[in-house]
Amino acid sequence: MTPEQLAEIEELRATPTPTLRAVAEGMERHLHTAHSVLDHGMIRVVDYMGDDAAICQAARVSYGRGTKAVSSDTGLIRYLMRHWHSTPFEMCEVKLHVKLPVFVARQWIRHRTANVNEYSARYSILDREFYIPAPEHLAAQSEVNNQGRGAALEGEEAARVLDWLRDDANRAYDHYEAMISQEGQQGLARELARMNLPANVYTQWYWKVDLHNLFHFLRLRADPHAQMEIRVYAEALCEIVRDWVPAAYAAFEDYRLGGASLSARGVECVRRMLAGEEVTQETSGMSKGEWREFMGTIAL
Amino acid sequence: MTPEQLAEIEELRATPTPTLRAVAEGMERHLHTAHSVLDHGMIRVVDYMGDDAAICQAARVSYGRGTKAVSSDTGLIRYLMRHWHSTPFEMCEVKLHVKLPVFVARQWIRHRTANVNEYSARYSILDREFYIPAPEHLAAQSEVNNQGRGAALEGEEAARVLDWLRDDANRAYDHYEAMISQEGQQGLARELARMNLPANVYTQWYWKVDLHNLFHFLRLRADPHAQMEIRVYAEALCEIVRDWVPAAYAAFEDYRLGGASLSARGVECVRRMLAGEEVTQETSGMSKGEWREFMGTIAL
Amino acid sequence: MTPEQLAEIEELRATPTPTLRAVAEGMERHLHTAHSVLDHGMIRVVDYMGDDAAICQAARVSYGRGTKAVSSDTGLIRYLMRHWHSTPFEMCEVKLHVKLPVFVARQWIRHRTANVNEYSARYSILDREFYIPAPEHLAAQSEVNNQGRGAALEGEEAARVLDWLRDDANRAYDHYEAMISQEGQQGLARELARMNLPANVYTQWYWKVDLHNLFHFLRLRADPHAQMEIRVYAEALCEIVRDWVPAAYAAFEDYRLGGASLSARGVECVRRMLAGEEVTQETSGMSKGEWREFMGTIAL
Amino acid sequence: MTPEQLAEIEELRATPTPTLRAVAEGMERHLHTAHSVLDHGMIRVVDYMGDDAAICQAARVSYGRGTKAVSSDTGLIRYLMRHWHSTPFEMCEVKLHVKLPVFVARQWIRHRTANVNEYSARYSILDREFYIPAPEHLAAQSEVNNQGRGAALEGEEAARVLDWLRDDANRAYDHYEAMISQEGQQGLARELARMNLPANVYTQWYWKVDLHNLFHFLRLRADPHAQMEIRVYAEALCEIVRDWVPAAYAAFEDYRLGGASLSARGVECVRRMLAGEEVTQETSGMSKGEWREFMGTIAL
Repeated sequence: MTPEQLAEIEELRATPTPTLRAVAEGMERHLHTAHSVLDHGMIRVVDYMGDDAAICQAARVSYGRGTKAVSSDTGLIRYLMRHWHSTPFEMCEVKLHVKLPVFVARQWIRHRTANVNEYSARYSILDREFYIPAPEHLAAQSEVNNQGRGAALEGEEAARVLDWLRDDANRAYDHYEAMISQEGQQGLARELARMNLPANVYTQWYWKVDLHNLFHFLRLRADPHAQMEIRVYAEALCEIVRDWVPAAYAAFEDYRLGGASLSARGVECVRRMLAGEEVTQETSGMSKGEWREFMGTIAL
Repeated sequence: MTPEQLAEIEELRATPTPTLRAVAEGMERHLHTAHSVLDHGMIRVVDYMGDDAAICQAARVSYGRGTKAVSSDTGLIRYLMRHWHSTPFEMCEVKLHVKLPVFVARQWIRHRTANVNEYSARYSILDREFYIPAPEHLAAQSEVNNQGRGAALEGEEAARVLDWLRDDANRAYDHYEAMISQEGQQGLARELARMNLPANVYTQWYWKVDLHNLFHFLRLRADPHAQMEIRVYAEALCEIVRDWVPAAYAAFEDYRLGGASLSARGVECVRRMLAGEEVTQETSGMSKGEWREFMGTIAL
Repeated sequence: MTPEQLAEIEELRATPTPTLRAVAEGMERHLHTAHSVLDHGMIRVVDYMGDDAAICQAARVSYGRGTKAVSSDTGLIRYLMRHWHSTPFEMCEVKLHVKLPVFVARQWIRHRTANVNEYSARYSILDREFYIPAPEHLAAQSEVNNQGRGAALEGEEAARVLDWLRDDANRAYDHYEAMISQEGQQGLARELARMNLPANVYTQWYWKVDLHNLFHFLRLRADPHAQMEIRVYAEALCEIVRDWVPAAYAAFEDYRLGGASLSARGVECVRRMLAGEEVTQETSGMSKGEWREFMGTIAL
Repeated sequence: MTPEQLAEIEELRATPTPTLRAVAEGMERHLHTAHSVLDHGMIRVVDYMGDDAAICQAARVSYGRGTKAVSSDTGLIRYLMRHWHSTPFEMCEVKLHVKLPVFVARQWIRHRTANVNEYSARYSILDREFYIPAPEHLAAQSEVNNQGRGAALEGEEAARVLDWLRDDANRAYDHYEAMISQEGQQGLARELARMNLPANVYTQWYWKVDLHNLFHFLRLRADPHAQMEIRVYAEALCEIVRDWVPAAYAAFEDYRLGGASLSARGVECVRRMLAGEEVTQETSGMSKGEWREFMGTIAL
């Protein structure tokens, strides 16, 4: 962050204005403040709308007298989450300023139900900022699973990889700068020169999303199977959402993040096991992979 | 509105809370206040996010140095609207409480890019409130155009129509009440009894939408060809949006509401006309309907 | 169906044309044929795109060599469904012609991720067709649960309800016809006259949706908690989808329709129970409602 | 294309199957055949649904007797396009296989209303294929407009740029290969190694979209202001769509591609000009930029 940007944030944080809207105290504390992620990335809450009460307000107009039985807001929110009611959670909205490497941005944008304004390398010049993994995150390809990561690279191999990542990024940026320069030459169009930059260059965007779709994003991206470089953004967001809508976040944690889905076969196996039967993969009707995942869920 | 509801609104309006978010002064004046529409309907702003500056902030992150040339916020907003840039306008959001007849709700819901929580007649009991047109709005079927309305009905015909609308609605509601009653009988399920109610019964919902999609809604529904009963909601919304984001609304008015689209043939005709040629429908390449619409656009 | 419509369907079914696209034999058998639902409703497949193989083709471009381990198409489809991968299922699309009561259409349309063209009562005249429940479906309001239905109404009460539903619908339609008539009078605009018709009048639409969103619809609407009048449409669709994409439908049945979600607390309880502990609602950390649902899932 | 891929396409094109669905003859000719775009890119139609008649069928269910006045299908399609009716065009769908540079994919994906399955560099290994502009497309940054391109670079500058683009891409790929290699070392995870690859590396995806949203894409991307590298894809698509739905494409060409939007001020100026008044920028009420665009539209 430049001193100008820090001063701007300081100023924004120093000037509260009265509003007649719902205010989420826990979220006000986050507003405008940049949360660091990775080596040069960040997340910053720029605006938000709604709170736990807004979710209940919307649910009560839908279910009317039908929801009176559920006396408390917390109980109602848990009920809505448990029964996959999505529209009341859509009544909350958050707008973030995110700085992130391009290869993370490419995963992130696959969540289509959000509004995005990205910094344009067609019109503007990208900064010389690249994500270089910390040595402990320089993971080997997993042997068992072509989707995951194995142990961290060691010794010379790790050093070689880091040198290549740094050198190639810097050389690419030197040439990017040299190509667009208009000193003593015509200067290549920015929209073309950007093609030389690698996928670990940082970009930034404003990203606006409703709480239902944010939960869906967090469920997939705060998951242990998500790539670490996007998971750290999701985890930082989890902490912010916890402060914003504590009841909704707690329900999300219980029913989604910490919960599990069982197939019809899985439900049947649990019932048989509880009735004292010894069930094995062979008698479960599940494939090996499925059985492994199932046992991972229910075994202590 | 019941006295309790008025008291609640009074209280909401009396208790400002400090926030670090952007505040749109013009919108704060509307917050919570019910704007009457039709005989028993209303629109009420429950929450909002963003203002004219938020649109520019998002555009500037996208277009970066590219937008510096457009010096003022108003100029930038006009540029964005003129060139059909939609994402910066998506950065503003509004949440409304709307009370409206079911046949209007059925048109409204065709705009899918919004969040909705509607009062549920499956769980709750609808009130005895029906839209009965004012006599001057009791229009005849248009002779020229099967899409529009002709002159207002007159005399006995008008009286007969109003009697039928009132009597049928009341009889349907009497039977609805009698069917769900549990006094001395089992009582029909609400989810079934509601099927007896006519399309002019009032329902209500929370409707949340971003500014880009709201403009799309207003462009179609504030249009003279829209059915009057939804147009009056759109017109009430136009006044609210004008106060919320004055620069964006002015651009919308100039480029969308008051603007016109010309086909390639239309552009060609304008050019020929400006060059002094006398162009007729026959020499225009347009169909009769198209020519009529074209002349309606460009003729004084 | 009119004789003209039946003849048209007959003709469509009699004239196969060669195509280079993927053809799902099981779906070809359904094409154009109307499946009756409720007393006057129907579902008819008008067009479709893709089959089980199309889902795998899309998944393999995404996961590349990563999916080779999953040898068969069926195994891959089960893997995708289990891990909530949605995009491969979006590669199949179906277009339906549906005739349904307005109060069912109002529930149906809440699924926004679909394309709809509905018969317009603004321009056209609705037919005299109303849904009148069969006596065994004339359910009482549930005593335990304000969301459900109790036993069927009996004797005089049932007869009275049926009389009211029939009489009110017919009177409303008589007046609708009389209001729009242009014989000896101006004739009320159709867009106004329709407001007199009750919610059990039949409408129709073309509805186009991708398979992922269709599964979401079926999961909610083929559920025992869904209102019977929409559930019968969902059930008819289930049979059609089973013939169209047998592998995807089988996975959907196992993981969604027949599966269950456990909360973190629920997972913990299952583990404790399997370890031999006796767990009660009091020691589970769950509310009464939650415990009841949990026991409904895992108890034999 | 590898010989295996060509053989597969050959086989797909050699085996027509009978279907009861609508068949668009013009589109059958394109099915499976790869259309080359840029140096290594391509577009290939994998599947489609609907034709011009499907658009009319959907419109007629919506507008019923109201559309009988518009006698022909072509007239109806022109009417729908002119009046911005979008839902009938949503009834057609197309699924494409596209190979394209990453920086083009990043622009393309901003169109969110589509279904995408992209080749995953997290699980799979990208090929050594990079977009290197032809010398005549190596444009300088525009002097007048920071959004556009100027003349092609010349002489040594052009040679230097091409060398850098080629060398940097190859060095990055050499290191990518070396990092993921498992010969004599652990081998970096693919999901990390990919970050070293530049934005001109080719990726591929399946992209499925309805005709309404495809027209929106084409209107923005086949526009002269779009970046050339995405415009050539849009232009190739235009030719395909013209063969698929000739009437809809002709209407799109007339009303969107070749048409123009006038603001309220622009309409007013045209009227004054046609009345013989000499209007200048100063008396138009427009800004300089706006006036320049306006004159570009209406002047011969």
